[in-house]
Amino acid sequence: MTTGQQPSTARGLSRRHLLLGGAAAGIGAAGAIGIDLAGKAGASSSAVVVPLNGAETVPFFGLHQAGIETPPQAHASLVALNLRDTVDRAALTRMMRILTGDAARLTQGEGALADSEPELAVTPARLTITFGFGPGLVSRAAGEAPGWLRPLPAFGVDRLDPAWSGGDLLIQVAADDPVTIAHSTRMLLKDLRSFATIHWVQTGFRRASGSEKPGTTMRNLFGQVDGTVNPVPGTDDFERLVWATTDNPGWLAGGTGFVLRRISMDLDKWDRLDRAGRESALGRTLATGAPLTGTKEQDEPDFTATTPLGFPIIPEYSHLRRARSENRAERIVRRGYNYDEVPAGEGVSNSGLLFVSFQSDVDRQFVPLQQRLDTLDLLNEWTTPIGSAVFAIPPGCSPGGYIGDTLF
Amino acid sequence: MTTGQQPSTARGLSRRHLLLGGAAAGIGAAGAIGIDLAGKAGASSSAVVVPLNGAETVPFFGLHQAGIETPPQAHASLVALNLRDTVDRAALTRMMRILTGDAARLTQGEGALADSEPELAVTPARLTITFGFGPGLVSRAAGEAPGWLRPLPAFGVDRLDPAWSGGDLLIQVAADDPVTIAHSTRMLLKDLRSFATIHWVQTGFRRASGSEKPGTTMRNLFGQVDGTVNPVPGTDDFERLVWATTDNPGWLAGGTGFVLRRISMDLDKWDRLDRAGRESALGRTLATGAPLTGTKEQDEPDFTATTPLGFPIIPEYSHLRRARSENRAERIVRRGYNYDEVPAGEGVSNSGLLFVSFQSDVDRQFVPLQQRLDTLDLLNEWTTPIGSAVFAIPPGCSPGGYIGDTLF
Ligand code: HEM
Ligand code: HEM
Repeated sequence: MTTGQQPSTARGLSRRHLLLGGAAAGIGAAGAIGIDLAGKAGASSSAVVVPLNGAETVPFFGLHQAGIETPPQAHASLVALNLRDTVDRAALTRMMRILTGDAARLTQGEGALADSEPELAVTPARLTITFGFGPGLVSRAAGEAPGWLRPLPAFGVDRLDPAWSGGDLLIQVAADDPVTIAHSTRMLLKDLRSFATIHWVQTGFRRASGSEKPGTTMRNLFGQVDGTVNPVPGTDDFERLVWATTDNPGWLAGGTGFVLRRISMDLDKWDRLDRAGRESALGRTLATGAPLTGTKEQDEPDFTATTPLGFPIIPEYSHLRRARSENRAERIVRRGYNYDEVPAGEGVSNSGLLFVSFQSDVDRQFVPLQQRLDTLDLLNEWTTPIGSAVFAIPPGCSPGGYIGDTLF
Repeated sequence: MTTGQQPSTARGLSRRHLLLGGAAAGIGAAGAIGIDLAGKAGASSSAVVVPLNGAETVPFFGLHQAGIETPPQAHASLVALNLRDTVDRAALTRMMRILTGDAARLTQGEGALADSEPELAVTPARLTITFGFGPGLVSRAAGEAPGWLRPLPAFGVDRLDPAWSGGDLLIQVAADDPVTIAHSTRMLLKDLRSFATIHWVQTGFRRASGSEKPGTTMRNLFGQVDGTVNPVPGTDDFERLVWATTDNPGWLAGGTGFVLRRISMDLDKWDRLDRAGRESALGRTLATGAPLTGTKEQDEPDFTATTPLGFPIIPEYSHLRRARSENRAERIVRRGYNYDEVPAGEGVSNSGLLFVSFQSDVDRQFVPLQQRLDTLDLLNEWTTPIGSAVFAIPPGCSPGGYIGDTLF
């Protein structure tokens, strides 16, 4: 990711101009022609200018696909497609070459190969495009599927709608700018026209870039701090939990498993619960996200602490307790988005979470966790999974290759 | 609007920390407790810090409602409601008092009166909430309606869907942050539960705040620079064109007329047109938005210039030519948003423009313009109005009053 900062050469200009006017113009132009300003900042200048976040790019090529380790962008559009009957292994190869080429261009702020609105492509805004393969695609490619690449087992809490579930090909398009998302998604869907049809599109959001201090954990639409305990990119822990090794089918090494659960959150019912009730359902406070036994968001919960009456302060039924396993291998990386759609009928909301998790082995990591939450989790009173999908995310590729080249 | 900038007191810190870490934390907290930092920046400091745009607020009270002169935010949600049968004049007064109170609080980064998720309210991100009254509401209040407060006359290009048209009460919620929009809209809809039901919700977007140099004219999803010729807030021109005087019913003085046209844009068909064709349909270039007779966006078009063969360079049928009247009173202020919904069937897009315009007299300003475009405008080949609504926007109010207090 570029984090371009440029020493000012115009000391006579007003600060406001530096911040908002001239500086922005300079970096905007640099961004448009793809110059990476990172690391070029002089140390001795007396004024700093702020890069337009629209010009920031995330590298496309690499060992892993982008959009997994990338700090979550403000907007995401998740699209699942079903392959047309005529698409064979050779066509799949063609399809992934075309998609890879356009994704590589768009994420760097260049138009797609046959871009019909190239002027909309010059603001990458940390765009990442991540591809995933469903069971149907892997079998069409006559590839070996990892054991977990199939619909999740049925859970008691599920009320799944097929319209929000499954699919052959996943595209996760994420960026800090909604125009960038709209344009990029359209370019990819045009590429796919002869290969596949849209199965579902699910869009979600977090706080805008620059709204809050970077590194602030997002809040979901229940108002909860959501994402506190989550393996951190760059750590051994993250590497081990997320990236598939060669034990999985060899083509997936450097890739990972993707789970999407569309979980509706009944905000109206949640409103009828008081703050104490909400906090005990979760095991954390609403104000800061601290565990009920602590004061700061990152404090370790103390599951042994009890009230004067002898009850655990963090209840047995709380989501915090139930979502944590003694088995440290049963962990996942969460990277979800809020959704908020138009309410139907007399409803005042139609909202929830696009719960997205990454894990190298869905069966060993996600499934036991979801089973535990299915058995007991007070939060289930207000949340209902209404969609579910599993995809294998192939590894990244080099500039000469394409996403999926280890499979085809 | 606050445009807070703070001199740094921490010269030892790295520039990156100043820009992204400590600075942001400081301003975030200031914003959360409502401190306006504008104008407090020292002139001699060697480093500047950048305010989080999430903390910026737009004043709620005033002669006019906010959200009209306000530079367009990145996101908007337009909601139309229909009044319940039981709602009489007294109930309308109660309703507008409640809505006004909550809008005043939310726009300043405070929770609504009965806010169920107050932690989501602390990031106003330039939130504005603007109320509009449809014909049904004004007659329920036994008020005098301006002559133009009724459905627009039918136009030949219209393919209106009642599901996107009309309504008794309009709420325009706009902010730079999508979480702020979701939370604020929900709080207002909760207030309205016993008074009204949702008729439609239309959401739209522009570039994210900070994506582009401030003041950059937006591009629509055809890739066109859209909004170049538009009266500028603060000028006499704007005042005269937008704000109703006492000739309209007296209660509307300081208010204005609001037109929404949901216009679908056939991106697939547009793609089949080459750049020259696109540019002559509009009369401006795609690259810069300059008129075909000029080189810069703000250049005046020369409608008399001709090609060597004697044809006008800016064609008679172009949108630019047709949208401009000789009668300078027949102008409007445009403040629209892009929309991009999930495509149906085999489509690759379901996109368009939430065309929003403000004008003191809809019949004298909007209607003749739309009639001219209806008769001839090549852009009609690719655009179709599918929704239409007209509302009267009452004036602003003082802290003791409420929106609509001049009517009730
Ligand atoms: C709408 C449904 C859900 C909501 C609102 C929700 C919300 C939360 C919140 C607020 C936290 C505490 C802060 C944090 O560490 O992130 C949390 C933790 C967690 N959640 Fe959820 N969650 C939901 C569904 C799920 C599901 C379906 C799973 C996995 C199957 C899950 C797995 C976890 C895990 C692993 C943690 C961290 C637990 C720990 O501290 O070790 N959540 N969730
Ligand atoms: C999807 C439909 C439409 C699209 C894509 C569109 C696009 C544009 C573009 C690109 C411009 C040139 C740049 C500018 O000055 O903003 C423009 C100008 C304008 N449009 Fe539209 N427009 C649409 C519908 C309408 C409608 C329905 C009206 C009013 C009834 C309208 C009124 C105007 C006006 C007044 C101008 C300025 C003309 C001048 O230079 O004096 N447009 N439009």
